[in-house]
Amino acid sequence: MKHFLNTQDWSRPDLDALLAQAAVFKREKLSGAMKGRAIALVFFNPSMRTRTSFEIGAFQLGGHAVVLQPGKDAWPIEFDLGTVMDGEAEEHIAEVARVLARYVDLIGVRAFPKFVDWAQDREDKVLRAFARYSTVPVINMETITHPCQELAHALALQEHFGTTDLRGKKFVLTWTYHPKPLNTAVANSALTIATRMGMDVTLLCPTPDYVLDERYLGWAQANVAESGGSFAISHDIESAYRGADVVYAKSWGALPYFGNWGPEKPIRDQYRHFIVDEAKMALTNDGVFSHCLPLRRNVKATDAVMDSPRCIAIHEAENRLHVQKAVMTALLR
Amino acid sequence: MKHFLNTQDWSRPDLDALLAQAAVFKREKLSGAMKGRAIALVFFNPSMRTRTSFEIGAFQLGGHAVVLQPGKDAWPIEFDLGTVMDGEAEEHIAEVARVLARYVDLIGVRAFPKFVDWAQDREDKVLRAFARYSTVPVINMETITHPCQELAHALALQEHFGTTDLRGKKFVLTWTYHPKPLNTAVANSALTIATRMGMDVTLLCPTPDYVLDERYLGWAQANVAESGGSFAISHDIESAYRGADVVYAKSWGALPYFGNWGPEKPIRDQYRHFIVDEAKMALTNDGVFSHCLPLRRNVKATDAVMDSPRCIAIHEAENRLHVQKAVMTALLR
Amino acid sequence: MKHFLNTQDWSRPDLDALLAQAAVFKREKLSGAMKGRAIALVFFNPSMRTRTSFEIGAFQLGGHAVVLQPGKDAWPIEFDLGTVMDGEAEEHIAEVARVLARYVDLIGVRAFPKFVDWAQDREDKVLRAFARYSTVPVINMETITHPCQELAHALALQEHFGTTDLRGKKFVLTWTYHPKPLNTAVANSALTIATRMGMDVTLLCPTPDYVLDERYLGWAQANVAESGGSFAISHDIESAYRGADVVYAKSWGALPYFGNWGPEKPIRDQYRHFIVDEAKMALTNDGVFSHCLPLRRNVKATDAVMDSPRCIAIHEAENRLHVQKAVMTALLR
Repeated sequence: MKHFLNTQDWSRPDLDALLAQAAVFKREKLSGAMKGRAIALVFFNPSMRTRTSFEIGAFQLGGHAVVLQPGKDAWPIEFDLGTVMDGEAEEHIAEVARVLARYVDLIGVRAFPKFVDWAQDREDKVLRAFARYSTVPVINMETITHPCQELAHALALQEHFGTTDLRGKKFVLTWTYHPKPLNTAVANSALTIATRMGMDVTLLCPTPDYVLDERYLGWAQANVAESGGSFAISHDIESAYRGADVVYAKSWGALPYFGNWGPEKPIRDQYRHFIVDEAKMALTNDGVFSHCLPLRRNVKATDAVMDSPRCIAIHEAENRLHVQKAVMTALLR
Repeated sequence: MKHFLNTQDWSRPDLDALLAQAAVFKREKLSGAMKGRAIALVFFNPSMRTRTSFEIGAFQLGGHAVVLQPGKDAWPIEFDLGTVMDGEAEEHIAEVARVLARYVDLIGVRAFPKFVDWAQDREDKVLRAFARYSTVPVINMETITHPCQELAHALALQEHFGTTDLRGKKFVLTWTYHPKPLNTAVANSALTIATRMGMDVTLLCPTPDYVLDERYLGWAQANVAESGGSFAISHDIESAYRGADVVYAKSWGALPYFGNWGPEKPIRDQYRHFIVDEAKMALTNDGVFSHCLPLRRNVKATDAVMDSPRCIAIHEAENRLHVQKAVMTALLR
Repeated sequence: MKHFLNTQDWSRPDLDALLAQAAVFKREKLSGAMKGRAIALVFFNPSMRTRTSFEIGAFQLGGHAVVLQPGKDAWPIEFDLGTVMDGEAEEHIAEVARVLARYVDLIGVRAFPKFVDWAQDREDKVLRAFARYSTVPVINMETITHPCQELAHALALQEHFGTTDLRGKKFVLTWTYHPKPLNTAVANSALTIATRMGMDVTLLCPTPDYVLDERYLGWAQANVAESGGSFAISHDIESAYRGADVVYAKSWGALPYFGNWGPEKPIRDQYRHFIVDEAKMALTNDGVFSHCLPLRRNVKATDAVMDSPRCIAIHEAENRLHVQKAVMTALLR
């Protein structure tokens, strides 16, 4: 049984087929591909776009989405094996996943890191536990990666450049400031899909402490080896932006300070100037700007950048609907 | 693009058409008018009737409603322009409204006042921001007015009197006591629709401090000038009730004390006797009683009034379903 | 008008018809039996299985479920008659139930005890108030009994034993430990349905203090008198398990300590050995184990028991979907 946990688990032709199907759904929104079928959307963290786009997507395909929020309007869940469950959790993922899989045809899971211990969080335990026990396909709705966002972004770039072949484009993934130490999921994902599509990718971040986890650096290198693009890390804003075709921004906390965020805050506060603004965008090759949203205006990117016609973030957000319909349809086959 | 923010923005023939369509939907509940279409219901405040009636209404029309509660199960939102967003809000209404409008065909918004500064709240900023940025029609699900309730009430009166022409009816909008300083939305709305329908309208409240905002007094006067009914303010219970055909009750806090409710409480506490009871109803012309609900029994109105056959509040509540289907259908055209 | 408040209110042929219809729905999941119809699911307490199975069930029947959580995303409700409502509650059940019944065709209610005063809680006031005021059928989604769970369990046993006739089977309802004093609803219900189906039923619990409320003992005795099975209470683990065909586990707080749980905790803590484990199951007649879920592993039952092929809890949970579709369909006729 195939899950959709990471794009890296899927072959390039299969990813291309998802993107092609998404483009079809964008032109023709109603279909019976999910008639009478259902998806459970399990949210351990808040959501606006993901929840709305999955729920509407299922509806447009003739299906139905049930939204569950464990620990809020459902029971808190245990994920470890062999535990004597005398704490807060009222039930084990083994039962949750098995039972849900009897009711629905697909299970989507959003589970952000707990931000205490990266060694723990990087195991993606919640998502993997659902995939282990569920007897129906599981979809990653953002954990430590965000593969649905990857596809939405790739589709937006294909639309912008008018071609499915993104090779040769200069892609800058830039860190931006945010008052909180955010999840690296979308950064990991942007790096993964940009290298997968064969672009020339620069990861721009303030210092080596802000470089991403080695797993994703490894994926990037493997992708470059296979696809013929390139991958470099830079801490210099000007050279990174110069000639860029795509600027993708995301904020995240430095991994060496994971769970011990106090000392990282004053360091991070020194790099507010990583904000995406018109001066930086002027260095690019008439590049487009995007971001996964939600975005804090005038902190991560200026109003001028967000309101510019070169900002494709709204198109990318819309594409979540189309690519997720493609993912659900592919998994239900 | 037409929104449904206030009945006052709509022509009388267009309002009459909504009421006529609602009466049709009341007889024949299923339709394909919203087939494959969706509405986002954005609730910044709790709801029972509004949420249920919109959700069921969309379903009966072949559509689907997504319920969102920003700051609860979605991200908190910034509404001001040009802000450096380093506070609580994770995203700006510009993105929220634009993205939602890519997923759905209609957006409903419930956003009560914040009860700190009426000068701020009377700008209806949240609703207006959605209307500004959304590329699909926006529906007011209660902010500082409640136009869906207006239509539901008007339809209930048309049904009760057996005619769509309500001119000449004596309509009393009476303030009632409530332990909390409530929103004036339904009071503003009742005044607006009653004068719009050409009735002889009395606003009964304890003192001049409880008179409504001048904007709604202005609407009432303009409506009277156009429709030929009348509008008066009274602080005398007996003369106001005498001969009334319709008694509509609502509690609200006095605007001069807005945001400084401490000193208003002992004043308000003196007027518990504004409760709608059998003795007052006996003064009317065999009048009907209604209220938008929720209603605190034996505080706003007695059990006897609520359980009397002259109480049409349940019919009015039911009509929310029918009029909202008419509103959604009209906006989707 | 027929409600589904307790199986004990329904005739045996009507219950058998529900189970037969559920078996049909298990084979053929889609139907138009609820086309254009809706159910309101009113949750005063959290839910995962109940909410998902009702929501998916309505969808598979062509209907729609609206999920409401009063006091959370809807208004808090008053249930007493004649109250001067100047406390927390914003509206009375008389209005809530009457209005909901205008929007939907069925109302499901989950309302656990308040755990303060059993004399109060045993009146099942919330459920009964909905049934009193609603003009559409009301379904018990777990209050002080859990009749949907009863049907799901009965169907699972019929499937396991390959016959609709469960007479002569030895059924053990065993108390198990849990750190909190839980609701007796599923225990009351298991006792009710097991005796109703004519099985030889043993209620196993640590001491006489843990015996269930006399109402349910009375139902058990009446059922035995009618159906020819038997009912006994035991405090001896070994003799109770020996030769059992079915072991059904549930934890609950001792009624004499209801609302005064402090002194009960050290007593309950002495009975952790009531956990369902392989040694106890080895005493049975190759018996099956089940539980309503959620279940704390290694507290109520061991991993080995839960992961054994003799555990039918997942099948029972799946059956919630099928039996609830049968209940909704029967009530809509």
